[in-house]
Amino acid sequence: MLGLILAQEILSPQALSVLGAGLAIGLGALGPGIGIGLLASGALQAIGRNPEATPQIQLNMILAIAFAEAIAIYALVVALLLKFVA
Amino acid sequence: MLGLILAQEILSPQALSVLGAGLAIGLGALGPGIGIGLLASGALQAIGRNPEATPQIQLNMILAIAFAEAIAIYALVVALLLKFVA
Amino acid sequence: MLGLILAQEILSPQALSVLGAGLAIGLGALGPGIGIGLLASGALQAIGRNPEATPQIQLNMILAIAFAEAIAIYALVVALLLKFVA
Amino acid sequence: MLGLILAQEILSPQALSVLGAGLAIGLGALGPGIGIGLLASGALQAIGRNPEATPQIQLNMILAIAFAEAIAIYALVVALLLKFVA
Amino acid sequence: MLGLILAQEILSPQALSVLGAGLAIGLGALGPGIGIGLLASGALQAIGRNPEATPQIQLNMILAIAFAEAIAIYALVVALLLKFVA
Repeated sequence: MLGLILAQEILSPQALSVLGAGLAIGLGALGPGIGIGLLASGALQAIGRNPEATPQIQLNMILAIAFAEAIAIYALVVALLLKFVA
Repeated sequence: MLGLILAQEILSPQALSVLGAGLAIGLGALGPGIGIGLLASGALQAIGRNPEATPQIQLNMILAIAFAEAIAIYALVVALLLKFVA
Repeated sequence: MLGLILAQEILSPQALSVLGAGLAIGLGALGPGIGIGLLASGALQAIGRNPEATPQIQLNMILAIAFAEAIAIYALVVALLLKFVA
Repeated sequence: MLGLILAQEILSPQALSVLGAGLAIGLGALGPGIGIGLLASGALQAIGRNPEATPQIQLNMILAIAFAEAIAIYALVVALLLKFVA
Repeated sequence: MLGLILAQEILSPQALSVLGAGLAIGLGALGPGIGIGLLASGALQAIGRNPEATPQIQLNMILAIAFAEAIAIYALVVALLLKFVA
């Protein structure tokens, strides 16, 4: 009977939504993190090759970071929804 | 008895197909997303190196994006099938 | 009682082997797909840099593709074994 | 009845926290490991291209490794918390 | 009752250790495989650029392959332990 109650608690929609929230932010942070690393790597290499172009490179780097960051924020929103919205 | 009913609901084919649909589109969007990023990166670098070749590069970039996008659409189709077709 | 029967169906070796088959071909296609993309990228860049070396590059590209493809076929074989062999 | 007791043991919060700890350090070591590989690759190539700049490159490489290593330590902390803190 | 027995068999520590062994070698072979591919790619490109340096490149390549291979052997050891040690 205790096993049933435990299984009920663990397999309940609320309990599984916690797992889903963890997966959402965990996997959802993977891509944007790698992506920002890649684009910043490119920007830093470009600045190293041609330091006079720093303003344009910086502007475009921040623009691209914003889009990648937004994807991470989508995952954050979904994770918080899964955790706090019934 | 409630535990059994909950387990029945969660482990039923319909419930698991929802999980499968999430995995299908989640993992299926991973590859094409990275792939389009890689090929667009190559295309942008090629245009930066040789701006006069922009038309050919753009044409081939769009051609390659179409094939990568198609893979994402396969995953979308499978996810929608898993969700809505019994 | 219905819950028990459902759990029995879902957690039975046959049912789990279906899951294993999906994982086998799903994850087993990941690596060779990326690998063939990488090696073909290198081959195409090499041909673009030195078009006269196309025959040797093509020969070695096909040789390497064959080995990568073979890994995908291993995954396919395992997936089909899991699905159809009891 | 034995099945219930086993399910109770395996699906209990303590048992699942062991699984979570494995996932935490397993996935949490993935990113920093790859990241340190990438940044050390860049540092070694830079030293190979311009050996006179070794001191600055080494300094910045160690700085960047420290930040990447810190992320792995976060995962280690979470894994140990999940394992030993009730 | 059959469902309980099946669940007991599948969720027993021995059954789950089989799953863990599969995950251990499956995920543990991922990183070293990619890593050896990356380092051999670098070695081959270096030999192509400067064939006279082949002995040193080959020596260092084999050294690095040994360390990457060792990581795969760790995963193999853990997988065999999970499978055969109670």
